[in-house]
Amino acid sequence: MADIPRPGRPVLGPNRYGKAETRVVKVTRDGATHHIKDLNVSVSLSGDMEEVHYSGSNAGVLPTDTTKNTVYAFAKEHGIDSAEQFGIRLARHFVTSQPSIHRARIRVEEYAWERVETSAQGAHSFVRKGQETRLAQIAYDGERWEVVAGLKDLTVLNTTDSEFRGYVKDRYTTLPEAHDRVLATAVSGRWRFHWTDDTQPAPDWNESYARVREHLLSAFAGTYSLSLQQTLYAMGSRIVEHRPEIDEVRFSLPNKHHFLVDLTPFGLENDNEVYFAADRPYGLIEATVLRDGCEARIPEDLTNL
Amino acid sequence: MADIPRPGRPVLGPNRYGKAETRVVKVTRDGATHHIKDLNVSVSLSGDMEEVHYSGSNAGVLPTDTTKNTVYAFAKEHGIDSAEQFGIRLARHFVTSQPSIHRARIRVEEYAWERVETSAQGAHSFVRKGQETRLAQIAYDGERWEVVAGLKDLTVLNTTDSEFRGYVKDRYTTLPEAHDRVLATAVSGRWRFHWTDDTQPAPDWNESYARVREHLLSAFAGTYSLSLQQTLYAMGSRIVEHRPEIDEVRFSLPNKHHFLVDLTPFGLENDNEVYFAADRPYGLIEATVLRDGCEARIPEDLTNL
Amino acid sequence: MADIPRPGRPVLGPNRYGKAETRVVKVTRDGATHHIKDLNVSVSLSGDMEEVHYSGSNAGVLPTDTTKNTVYAFAKEHGIDSAEQFGIRLARHFVTSQPSIHRARIRVEEYAWERVETSAQGAHSFVRKGQETRLAQIAYDGERWEVVAGLKDLTVLNTTDSEFRGYVKDRYTTLPEAHDRVLATAVSGRWRFHWTDDTQPAPDWNESYARVREHLLSAFAGTYSLSLQQTLYAMGSRIVEHRPEIDEVRFSLPNKHHFLVDLTPFGLENDNEVYFAADRPYGLIEATVLRDGCEARIPEDLTNL
Amino acid sequence: MADIPRPGRPVLGPNRYGKAETRVVKVTRDGATHHIKDLNVSVSLSGDMEEVHYSGSNAGVLPTDTTKNTVYAFAKEHGIDSAEQFGIRLARHFVTSQPSIHRARIRVEEYAWERVETSAQGAHSFVRKGQETRLAQIAYDGERWEVVAGLKDLTVLNTTDSEFRGYVKDRYTTLPEAHDRVLATAVSGRWRFHWTDDTQPAPDWNESYARVREHLLSAFAGTYSLSLQQTLYAMGSRIVEHRPEIDEVRFSLPNKHHFLVDLTPFGLENDNEVYFAADRPYGLIEATVLRDGCEARIPEDLTNL
Repeated sequence: MADIPRPGRPVLGPNRYGKAETRVVKVTRDGATHHIKDLNVSVSLSGDMEEVHYSGSNAGVLPTDTTKNTVYAFAKEHGIDSAEQFGIRLARHFVTSQPSIHRARIRVEEYAWERVETSAQGAHSFVRKGQETRLAQIAYDGERWEVVAGLKDLTVLNTTDSEFRGYVKDRYTTLPEAHDRVLATAVSGRWRFHWTDDTQPAPDWNESYARVREHLLSAFAGTYSLSLQQTLYAMGSRIVEHRPEIDEVRFSLPNKHHFLVDLTPFGLENDNEVYFAADRPYGLIEATVLRDGCEARIPEDLTNL
Repeated sequence: MADIPRPGRPVLGPNRYGKAETRVVKVTRDGATHHIKDLNVSVSLSGDMEEVHYSGSNAGVLPTDTTKNTVYAFAKEHGIDSAEQFGIRLARHFVTSQPSIHRARIRVEEYAWERVETSAQGAHSFVRKGQETRLAQIAYDGERWEVVAGLKDLTVLNTTDSEFRGYVKDRYTTLPEAHDRVLATAVSGRWRFHWTDDTQPAPDWNESYARVREHLLSAFAGTYSLSLQQTLYAMGSRIVEHRPEIDEVRFSLPNKHHFLVDLTPFGLENDNEVYFAADRPYGLIEATVLRDGCEARIPEDLTNL
Repeated sequence: MADIPRPGRPVLGPNRYGKAETRVVKVTRDGATHHIKDLNVSVSLSGDMEEVHYSGSNAGVLPTDTTKNTVYAFAKEHGIDSAEQFGIRLARHFVTSQPSIHRARIRVEEYAWERVETSAQGAHSFVRKGQETRLAQIAYDGERWEVVAGLKDLTVLNTTDSEFRGYVKDRYTTLPEAHDRVLATAVSGRWRFHWTDDTQPAPDWNESYARVREHLLSAFAGTYSLSLQQTLYAMGSRIVEHRPEIDEVRFSLPNKHHFLVDLTPFGLENDNEVYFAADRPYGLIEATVLRDGCEARIPEDLTNL
Repeated sequence: MADIPRPGRPVLGPNRYGKAETRVVKVTRDGATHHIKDLNVSVSLSGDMEEVHYSGSNAGVLPTDTTKNTVYAFAKEHGIDSAEQFGIRLARHFVTSQPSIHRARIRVEEYAWERVETSAQGAHSFVRKGQETRLAQIAYDGERWEVVAGLKDLTVLNTTDSEFRGYVKDRYTTLPEAHDRVLATAVSGRWRFHWTDDTQPAPDWNESYARVREHLLSAFAGTYSLSLQQTLYAMGSRIVEHRPEIDEVRFSLPNKHHFLVDLTPFGLENDNEVYFAADRPYGLIEATVLRDGCEARIPEDLTNL
């Protein structure tokens, strides 16, 4: 029997548990043409978990090892069409099959692969694309779904059409105004879908991802930037305006500073040609863009796992 | 003038900006005896920032470069007694000195150094301790303070007094029960202080950190563990019960699996002696422990920067 | 005057010094069309450096800060056509301009960028390709050049046409033979050019890199693999046979194990469909392939910086 | 039968293979007092390996999976007294038990743990020390042993007693001379033992490691530094002079620059108090120190795995 805390004893607050970073690679064969999906899946479950914290009773605990097994079994039984669809299936399973589990959150990282062209028969050779990591998070409480897609580590750079001036100067300000600077960032973005009710048709998750990625790239490239904040808003609003399935976008954009090197000691002029790409510190710009009338639900700190 | 979105246009949600990861090392000289503080400071500001997102006007934007300069200037002007005290000073400065800035959040990582004993005169040689990273987060909105301290990467291990059994079995469960296992985790913890009103005396931040660290280590070591959840609760409740200045503790504990290697194919018995320390996947146990009557305010996903 | 060690005192062996990881981004403008080169340059110098070690006299030491400045100045003065050409220019400068410096080794990492298509005027937007990192190492002693090109972190995978059987079994062998397995590796390769004499025409470094990369990918994809060693030799020999400018190739290939998950406990058959992508341990296969009659000069341990 | 290359075909050069990064934790029980050793072991084998490269025949290949199993079995059968002793046992086994294997190289990383004091019965709780990683490399060719010990990631810092001046100035030199600077580095060191013949008594490996570590720390701390090269030589010569079991020491020392922040724009003087700890670029100083009459055998590029 559970050792319920006495009045005044410390009480349990929000909690969850699961298996993080289960790496699954699924091969599908279409004759001699093979397809692969390469995911990193993290399961997080919560519900009636007081006893295991207070007394150590595991009577309501599905082992994290079991959640790992379930990922592999579901890859076989149901295949993996998209990270979102796979996560939805997992979340529904855990919430509907275990009385003690009331909420599930599935996080997925997906690594893209390209085919290697070869004269050999068949198509079974791949090279990892190595650009951004695609992200998906699926949360389910037995009634309502919340699906957030995203990406991280998509590094972009404009060599011109960016300035930064007209800002506040105080006692500690030494930065000179920039009329033509390099603007670079490693995009970390998340976007939340309008879809919450599984009696309604779900979006085409893969198509949506591809289109959102295009919009954010073209908005970054096509915006004459007066500040990274303005570029961020341009990227987010472009997505919300063009993709009706998305209600909210949040970006965390490190300003990857490229400092113009002073070459005058060497008798040289640096006409926006030679830059030092700095590591730390970096500016960090974070903001949410919302469809008018929608609520901000993506957490302010973006996390990957 | 700001280009305010038309009705129906996407709107700006929660946002903030600042300079992340300013690395500052402060040397203090007490004759030939030197002291150092080694911090990584991230400043995040928010307030009246609509214009910079909608139109790119920087009229209300204090540059992130200025916030970096301020960190260095304050290290000189005021010294660094503790990460918390330094962060409080910075946060107050930004909120009270700039009309457009209404909230500041300062995050600090601190790296500990030990003295190197030497026969040379003076005491000015140090070796980085390299164990946990100390963390502090200070938030201020002009009225109320929220201070959260913490640590990450403190790796602990018990070679016995840990079991895991009596759990739910479903179709996908294959894990055998363990009556004597290795329990290991890399502690990531955050604890929130009761102190919110700067007319009240502040805690001794450094003393508090040292005592909390001791409590969590001794609770980990002294608890006979039936589950990592139980150990987590023991660690959190020990802190809340012994440290009146703290209202809330949250831990994120990866279960760093140490699997007993099957040596029977080699005619050997493995009597809990030889383990494989696995990387991924890992169990992940996360929970908050609260002083009775207090509210959970630490975000569910712990982040470092 | 130098404090030359007394007979019997410890003596200085091989030594070098320089500035590592100078990050330089060079923008070239062709009207509204911009081009970028993004390098990480490490300079290592050696020569008459006994005094600085024995007595601390810096009379023969060109500061590492100066080597950093030289990288930036040369990017402006001479541009960057290829990592190899840029490194050759730097190495020649240090060896020929400083009497105390007899040998220079320049290492370069290069990060590739792709254009972002946009409807905006001009072409000045880029997204980092994020696949392999291109490498170059240039060594010069005033007479002879040694140029080694390479890459790291090019991850490739075949879903079939790989087996592993017929191996030695001893008391500690438990591995079952595999008749159809996934073969995956993160290629780290280096190849040494025949060119050593700068009175002879140099290869087209960029063209050579592109062709070598194609050959190694097509050899990986097109080889029916009985062992990763065999695949490695196929990759190396393909390069040596097709590229007369290259005398030697060395690969370090981690065998990124993809273990077939046992689904039988769940009543499922795993017909080479569902794999666990493991982190550690991993097989590590390293070998050099030489043009007949040539000498192995690439160090057995590949290092990046 | 092996597909020996035709005359003129590319030939195999230096090669080796094995299992890298086998993580083994060994628990030893002395009643209620437990001891742990925590190693990361990499095995590298070479010998008659032409066929597996040329034809894919595995007839002479002991699987890397077997070398992993052997690590675990030996931990049980023989225990782990030191990384060096454990590596010697493994190397001898592979070379003497397999006709096709002529040389073995074992690399070990060791992670140190400290006890957690607790009032609980027994002593079975540990916290990872988290400072340097101890390294050992053992090579054996059936006759001669070569043992190299070392460490990496031991970060040290002096707040004074370091200058840098009197150096060469050329067209690209802008660095001002420093009469009192912070000197900091993350020590990576390797030292080679005189012992090569196992009919002679071996050193006390653990005692030797502890003493070498003390000498390098005290030499770093106690040397008034005119250059990092001089400090390096002081560290190496101190070891060679005090430890007769060691013939050669090599260090790779990144100069972790701490730049004095210019506070004059804020009306403040920076009297060697406030520093910016920079990431990249960094100076890199590498040198070998030898017992007089000994040969340099440690490779110029230090690698960890």
